[in-house]
Amino acid sequence: MAHIDLGMDETLFPGITGLMKFRPETAKPLNALAEALLRAPNSLPAGERELIAAYVSALNECRFCRDSHSAFAAAQLDEGMTLVHQVRADLDTAPVSEKLRALLRIAAAVQQSGRAVTTDLVDRARAQGATDVEVHDTVLIAAAFCMFNRYVDGLGTFAPDGTDGYAVSARRIVAHGYTDSV
Amino acid sequence: MAHIDLGMDETLFPGITGLMKFRPETAKPLNALAEALLRAPNSLPAGERELIAAYVSALNECRFCRDSHSAFAAAQLDEGMTLVHQVRADLDTAPVSEKLRALLRIAAAVQQSGRAVTTDLVDRARAQGATDVEVHDTVLIAAAFCMFNRYVDGLGTFAPDGTDGYAVSARRIVAHGYTDSV
Repeated sequence: MAHIDLGMDETLFPGITGLMKFRPETAKPLNALAEALLRAPNSLPAGERELIAAYVSALNECRFCRDSHSAFAAAQLDEGMTLVHQVRADLDTAPVSEKLRALLRIAAAVQQSGRAVTTDLVDRARAQGATDVEVHDTVLIAAAFCMFNRYVDGLGTFAPDGTDGYAVSARRIVAHGYTDSV
Repeated sequence: MAHIDLGMDETLFPGITGLMKFRPETAKPLNALAEALLRAPNSLPAGERELIAAYVSALNECRFCRDSHSAFAAAQLDEGMTLVHQVRADLDTAPVSEKLRALLRIAAAVQQSGRAVTTDLVDRARAQGATDVEVHDTVLIAAAFCMFNRYVDGLGTFAPDGTDGYAVSARRIVAHGYTDSV
């Protein structure tokens, strides 16, 4: 049970969805941020941006966000959930482009601390073709999930077992985005 | 120098201000979130909410955010910067209300991990009169600064020395808020 009384059946509104119904004033900018980072037109495909979100959420051990964004990534990547699991299991050997691998390494540094991002990590991403905007967006996606993960777990929200619920959410997010999903 | 080319004189647009000019698409929801959390009408005074932001930023060792939000808190607290320094130096002995102390303890747990927030920490805040919305907002402010701090430091932005620049920003934020400040 969540640390606060959300005034609803938490099994119907798990994770961040119950928090967003509880506090629509903060839900609006949070959804707008997710839409700008994960869905708006970008040289990084949406599936790769969701993979960064899933990877950071796994590092933060936030089960609801990890399983949600793994499903959202899988739904938008040709290689599906297999690739998501490979990245989460071992970034060094996962079959991703060297550019995406370098960006995911930056994301892992951000998960530890902003100060863990070195010039060397950024130079390696740039050497693989990453642009300034792609580096910026990678850092901000990783930072944003350090917020979302803490928000969801810090209030003790319910995270469903299994994969069915997350797959349904994935279809809704892919079809309608974040700003229309609450 | 920042890790990416912001295309501007970083000494004129330090910390998050340069990032917001570089990427207005994400600046808009980030400013809207700061406004909703730190400035909108709330049973927690704006000075106390800024104090939570400054405290978490200090724990994350993000100098720009720590000094900015310390100035913003000081400008809106009767006890000014003295209290901000007392809280940052030793929360156990700082002369704040027991309710605010309990909320700041929740914020410190969030800074570590969402999973570090215990039922006991929340029960102690509630015993001091904290409402569900106040607990929610404390968790989300602390989580949001785990994002802002990583964003500012993860991109290696410039943080001015001294206090003059931060005091000017404080006057602007108090008068105009976050959404009109970029």
